[in-house]
Amino acid sequence: MARTGRRPAGSSSREAILSAARQALGRYGYDGTTVRGIAADAGVDPALVHHFFGTKQGLFVAAMDFPVDPSTVLPALLAPGVEGLGERLVRFFLSVWEAGDRSPFLALIRGAVSHEESAALLREFVTREVLGRVAAAVNESQPQLRATLVGSQLVGLAMARYVIKLEPLASADPETVVAAVAPTVQRYLAGSLA
Amino acid sequence: MARTGRRPAGSSSREAILSAARQALGRYGYDGTTVRGIAADAGVDPALVHHFFGTKQGLFVAAMDFPVDPSTVLPALLAPGVEGLGERLVRFFLSVWEAGDRSPFLALIRGAVSHEESAALLREFVTREVLGRVAAAVNESQPQLRATLVGSQLVGLAMARYVIKLEPLASADPETVVAAVAPTVQRYLAGSLA
Repeated sequence: MARTGRRPAGSSSREAILSAARQALGRYGYDGTTVRGIAADAGVDPALVHHFFGTKQGLFVAAMDFPVDPSTVLPALLAPGVEGLGERLVRFFLSVWEAGDRSPFLALIRGAVSHEESAALLREFVTREVLGRVAAAVNESQPQLRATLVGSQLVGLAMARYVIKLEPLASADPETVVAAVAPTVQRYLAGSLA
Repeated sequence: MARTGRRPAGSSSREAILSAARQALGRYGYDGTTVRGIAADAGVDPALVHHFFGTKQGLFVAAMDFPVDPSTVLPALLAPGVEGLGERLVRFFLSVWEAGDRSPFLALIRGAVSHEESAALLREFVTREVLGRVAAAVNESQPQLRATLVGSQLVGLAMARYVIKLEPLASADPETVVAAVAPTVQRYLAGSLA
């Protein structure tokens, strides 16, 4: 593509990249979207996409307003090993949702229940960038199943506490929630599933 | 309102009431909806609404296509006592979702993440008709918190398995899911939360 029409580096380029990324992700899914294609759509050099967002996962995190970048957060949580991992995951998960703006999470869930393509996008991203990393840290049989079971409890906790707001879970002290839910996550990671 | 134009008792009246209820609940929310207003919209006597659906709560179950009526289903599940209740709840929950049309569930979740009034409607119903019954069967401390924790795992299981469709949980054999998740629900009902 011709140099003419390319945007200069800066915040308007950043916004153009994010806009192109949202369109491409919505249309082609996570696996079908390339940094090169997004750069072309946004009229910028692919190097500028990498400059702003690093990898494709970083671009997804920014485009979808994902609350944290799993590639930067999960390694530190997983590094100490499986012992205590359930508690670390639940505590971190709560700290993100307690502090932050939850509207991006609501938008992701709303999309997933409304459109199969949105569900597929969320599924691909979570499977590869979140559950894949968790499964790789599991030492027991059926690591992928274990990782999805962890995901089911954490998504359900967010739905019950922050969306439907079921009481008394919705206003329970975070440490009460950690104490109640961490053993569930720990069993899914390292206990018996039979 | 004039007698003229009122429908006779029968299935067409029942459908007219349900249609009016869905419109009113969608437009005015649970608190803003009255049996009298629905009866007027449907062109029937309020007594006929009570005859068909009992209370406004019963009308909600029918109008929102709640997959089962908790007031008829839960007593049988709860009757044998807390022992084995986790397994009975998970198995029953799966049997409902495996067999049925999931679009009403998706509509409920979509509403809850989109509008606070819809979340309130779902919260009020689930708290009173589902969690209240489960909590009453619990013999340990903090029965309401325990019931909401059960709810968090079951909602999360539905989200992960049927909405986001995380693999391999989405296509796991139901008995595999029961074996993995029932101990979680049982601990929430009768185990230590500390």
